[in-house]
Amino acid sequence: MNQADLASTVVARQLAECGNLFHRWQWSLSTSSNYSALLPDSVVAISRSGVDKQFMTANDFLAVDLHGAPLANFKEIRPSAETELHCHIYRKAQGQALPIASVLHTHSKFAVYFSRRFAAEGVVRFSGFEMQKIFDGIDTHDSSIEVPIFANSQKMSDITEKFDAYLAKNAWPAAYLIEGHGVYAWGKSVYHAKQKLEALEHLFEQKYMEEK
Amino acid sequence: MNQADLASTVVARQLAECGNLFHRWQWSLSTSSNYSALLPDSVVAISRSGVDKQFMTANDFLAVDLHGAPLANFKEIRPSAETELHCHIYRKAQGQALPIASVLHTHSKFAVYFSRRFAAEGVVRFSGFEMQKIFDGIDTHDSSIEVPIFANSQKMSDITEKFDAYLAKNAWPAAYLIEGHGVYAWGKSVYHAKQKLEALEHLFEQKYMEEK
Amino acid sequence: MNQADLASTVVARQLAECGNLFHRWQWSLSTSSNYSALLPDSVVAISRSGVDKQFMTANDFLAVDLHGAPLANFKEIRPSAETELHCHIYRKAQGQALPIASVLHTHSKFAVYFSRRFAAEGVVRFSGFEMQKIFDGIDTHDSSIEVPIFANSQKMSDITEKFDAYLAKNAWPAAYLIEGHGVYAWGKSVYHAKQKLEALEHLFEQKYMEEK
Amino acid sequence: MNQADLASTVVARQLAECGNLFHRWQWSLSTSSNYSALLPDSVVAISRSGVDKQFMTANDFLAVDLHGAPLANFKEIRPSAETELHCHIYRKAQGQALPIASVLHTHSKFAVYFSRRFAAEGVVRFSGFEMQKIFDGIDTHDSSIEVPIFANSQKMSDITEKFDAYLAKNAWPAAYLIEGHGVYAWGKSVYHAKQKLEALEHLFEQKYMEEK
Repeated sequence: MNQADLASTVVARQLAECGNLFHRWQWSLSTSSNYSALLPDSVVAISRSGVDKQFMTANDFLAVDLHGAPLANFKEIRPSAETELHCHIYRKAQGQALPIASVLHTHSKFAVYFSRRFAAEGVVRFSGFEMQKIFDGIDTHDSSIEVPIFANSQKMSDITEKFDAYLAKNAWPAAYLIEGHGVYAWGKSVYHAKQKLEALEHLFEQKYMEEK
Repeated sequence: MNQADLASTVVARQLAECGNLFHRWQWSLSTSSNYSALLPDSVVAISRSGVDKQFMTANDFLAVDLHGAPLANFKEIRPSAETELHCHIYRKAQGQALPIASVLHTHSKFAVYFSRRFAAEGVVRFSGFEMQKIFDGIDTHDSSIEVPIFANSQKMSDITEKFDAYLAKNAWPAAYLIEGHGVYAWGKSVYHAKQKLEALEHLFEQKYMEEK
Repeated sequence: MNQADLASTVVARQLAECGNLFHRWQWSLSTSSNYSALLPDSVVAISRSGVDKQFMTANDFLAVDLHGAPLANFKEIRPSAETELHCHIYRKAQGQALPIASVLHTHSKFAVYFSRRFAAEGVVRFSGFEMQKIFDGIDTHDSSIEVPIFANSQKMSDITEKFDAYLAKNAWPAAYLIEGHGVYAWGKSVYHAKQKLEALEHLFEQKYMEEK
Repeated sequence: MNQADLASTVVARQLAECGNLFHRWQWSLSTSSNYSALLPDSVVAISRSGVDKQFMTANDFLAVDLHGAPLANFKEIRPSAETELHCHIYRKAQGQALPIASVLHTHSKFAVYFSRRFAAEGVVRFSGFEMQKIFDGIDTHDSSIEVPIFANSQKMSDITEKFDAYLAKNAWPAAYLIEGHGVYAWGKSVYHAKQKLEALEHLFEQKYMEEK
């Protein structure tokens, strides 16, 4: 697989389309945010570092293995620094009931707000919203959704260790927040991950309005 | 009528156009919301379940009868779970002075906010806005608009029974809210229903700003 | 002049373009708002009643005289109910130092908010903003802008009389608000009026943020 | 270099594209804001005065020298009144470690808000946000960003003197605010400056949400 092969995949086009949308909505401003999808043979397509999402195209991705190492034809391209967070999610999800084929990370405004607002509690909870039904295993508004918050670090293993510790005690969450940083969400396809991110930001916005 | 016939109707195109607009405005995020319109011979065109409104097209609808049963060529397509709420509105409106030919349901942010904020009161009221004149029978700002709020339920008959009970005692409202869920609005055409939804969200936003 | 002539004018195209923009920004939701421009020979091009601004085109205008009476080829088209407010502004501006060639009325959210918030005071004031320099005769931020607020009425002469009384005692304001209704702004061209409206909404939004 | 030469440069197209984006986001409403980029031979391409950014194109720029004087073919075009602020930044940056090749000034809403909110303190500070890493020399969220605020003046030298005084005592800031006016940001390219502006407005918005 080379750059042209990767750019011609459906997921590269869909991830770029998500980037353009998230920039329009100011969820991925500046060069922030990174997006990935799982291809056959455990290849991960992930956005390269420093892309302005307003101009993102299917050419802005590289292929790495499940441990974040660029494949042969992609060694010249700098992956996003947070590649390890994406790969860690794919690795942890292997063998789980719910397949994960795409991970989307944004700096959407209400997610960032609550990542700081509830950093001490380490969690944001929602209950009573119909919108919760988008999340896996939820079939009624009369339910509760929990999104954990982990401290930010420039050392990715600090974050993956916290997620490991969380998963050792809890079921897979809908997403996770990193304090002062943003949200990581996932799904069985690029659009499924996008839809979860949209549902989350809607719920965060409602919580913000109710708090003020 | 088959899928191609339905997709070629003006209302299918207009409903999809509303979906695209409501997604852009974040009123129908994720796979939430559903839209319908009445066709000749009491056929209801209604959005299929799980559509991402960003990508909605005239192909995302199916035809059901006034009781929500899919017509012959549409039995393979899953209708929205809330089809019964749409059909109930069309059935109740039969023989009323004001014809209803389209029903739009969204999770627009201020509608959802007030559906919880005033759940205990069971109603949101507006008065003094010129925008109220979009609603049927209102020809001055010096009037009062009432939007009832019903408790949410995954059993649709719980909601239709509450609306029946409301209508037994009151004139047709401008719309209704479902707690923690969203808004149902209607009109004599797809665009008329859209315009009512726009007026409502404007009024809800004003109320939100005045309350804070 | 007939409908085709009017639709081919630059101002009809520009007014429709403003309508599309103001709908996108939710400043002219539902069928609210109306826009006009002055053509040669004291002919006023004004939006017809009930247009959804999302779909507004250069065909959505009719020609009236300075007293709001439709010209010969336009007697079948219903002008906006607020045509008299537009015509009144053009009539009052005749012979004034600052020519007025376009009047734009919207229900933009911060304008509506302050039309109620300061209804008792009858005025909204701004000072200290560089943005104030868009207004006629203002060449420094170290200035003060006053926007009067008039009570709403379904009888247009109630409003024009209040504006007459205001002008008898004051210089031409940047714009005026009608309580619970919206804003009227004007300029020497369609785009000039649009730019004033944009400056006003920016200033209203700043005032809203400072008040909260 | 003539007008056609200038309009054909990549930076003129990119600056106009930024103007269109900033108008869509209401960061450059009315005829406010001005943008520039450095061309070879110390020529500065800067937006002409009074442009509506909704309609900005690569034709809306003129070429001036580093002291703001229009080049030979551009003497008929009125530069923005704030040309001196742009040129001053390019002059001060000469010989600095970080090259500055573009300066963008907007009236974005949270920047204007904080330019007044913290005018007395003369500075806005951020810490703990991942988004801070867009700024030069910052490689961790565990850092602090400082944006100075200068009093507004219609005399440009009042502002440049304040920036001179600031730079005499401090490292180059991420940007500066002018009270009641807006933000000036810069970068090594047009898009780099745009990305800094986006990061700043994101941070200002977070600060606004945390304050309320």
